[in-house]
Amino acid sequence: MNKHIETKITLLGAGPGDPELLTLKGVKALQTADVVLYDALTNEALLAHAPEAAIKVYVGKRSGEHSHSQGAINQLMIDYALNYGHVVRLKGGDPFVFGRGYEELDFAASYAVPVTVIPGISSSIGVPALQQIPVTHRGLSESFWVITGTTTNGQISDDIYQAANSNATVVILMGLKKLAQIVSVFKAAGKAQLPAAVVQNGSTENEKLVVATVEQLQAKVEEAQIEAPALLIFGEVVSLHPSFKNIIKQYAAIS
Amino acid sequence: MNKHIETKITLLGAGPGDPELLTLKGVKALQTADVVLYDALTNEALLAHAPEAAIKVYVGKRSGEHSHSQGAINQLMIDYALNYGHVVRLKGGDPFVFGRGYEELDFAASYAVPVTVIPGISSSIGVPALQQIPVTHRGLSESFWVITGTTTNGQISDDIYQAANSNATVVILMGLKKLAQIVSVFKAAGKAQLPAAVVQNGSTENEKLVVATVEQLQAKVEEAQIEAPALLIFGEVVSLHPSFKNIIKQYAAIS
Repeated sequence: MNKHIETKITLLGAGPGDPELLTLKGVKALQTADVVLYDALTNEALLAHAPEAAIKVYVGKRSGEHSHSQGAINQLMIDYALNYGHVVRLKGGDPFVFGRGYEELDFAASYAVPVTVIPGISSSIGVPALQQIPVTHRGLSESFWVITGTTTNGQISDDIYQAANSNATVVILMGLKKLAQIVSVFKAAGKAQLPAAVVQNGSTENEKLVVATVEQLQAKVEEAQIEAPALLIFGEVVSLHPSFKNIIKQYAAIS
Repeated sequence: MNKHIETKITLLGAGPGDPELLTLKGVKALQTADVVLYDALTNEALLAHAPEAAIKVYVGKRSGEHSHSQGAINQLMIDYALNYGHVVRLKGGDPFVFGRGYEELDFAASYAVPVTVIPGISSSIGVPALQQIPVTHRGLSESFWVITGTTTNGQISDDIYQAANSNATVVILMGLKKLAQIVSVFKAAGKAQLPAAVVQNGSTENEKLVVATVEQLQAKVEEAQIEAPALLIFGEVVSLHPSFKNIIKQYAAIS
């Protein structure tokens, strides 16, 4: 290759799924990409912003498919950057919200490859917002706490126990498989009647929503056949959702 | 007016300041705006996406200037929507992260005016990310907790006391004026040596950053003459910032 290569990496947050939730800065980064490495949760419509000649590589870690380890992704990213120039590492949501983005940044730094970070709409805030559930609201919530449901050791995070005892709106990502355990934590904290919601495929055409009290959440999630990826929301703010108001009315009619 | 009016409101998150952190969906909303109501923290470059003929009204609440009460903003929004059609309510960050967005949504609903919410990059995640400080990182943080520094009653939120005792990365918005008190809460929780950061005007040309231990934070913030709007970050993840590594080296050299 005779072309001068400017080696650099952009860690780009793609947002929760809807390709129109990409930022203008993200579009510009993709337009100058020589290589795009993208995840399972990335909407492929986003790739259309990259030049036709750019190399597009799927490096997702979806269960049941051929998967790349984080180490392999890191190495691919560097190899492509050194050989082709500008690598855009396109990640679902925001790169630093449980995205292992800092590991990629750190690895690139060890090769002295410059990295630019472009934040994305995190599903933790954006998905509730699209359902018109505010993570904060005067009189109901002065804070929100975002936690991973799946830690390195396969257990739910200890932070969930503390969060269940706090006044924060609690948003849990990657927690659907641990729903029974998470629900029991909230019940143990005396919050069986707390409003809660589960959103599958937030911001996309396939979005599904379940709203219930903590006590009824799991039964309703099973009934609706909710699958991953899904996000859990626990907090009084969920009571603002219209379908929760209907639940309350049903109860009033029964009792 | 003979023109058919389609009355509707879009609550649009503008992101933390950099106008390129607006989403594509946000651009589309602005392009069809008849009226734009915008805040003090909104970058005026964003208004260029709206038609030249659209009415642009500043409804900011910056101290020392003429200010609009929330009630007046709500009423203006409805009056414009009923008389002109599509009102875009452009709000800094994300509309539901301490933005009083739900109050506006609720008011519009009481007039049966349809509201679309478009999430924005919240400064709580985006501003640390742009400084390459990840709010979560394996081995350092399994969660982050975002809290307002200024509650309705003028006191710091009770949630800050709990957060100081948690393992979460703690991000506090609108907390600069309460910095002394917030620092004392973290010290009382035994966290005098916890890494912390303050970012003023995050994502803009005027961005300023201070990184220090909790113990030294206030002195350094005063020395750097940090002013609002600023965001506070408390957590081990701040130790990943290059300037914090330099602080550690300086200590090592002295002791």
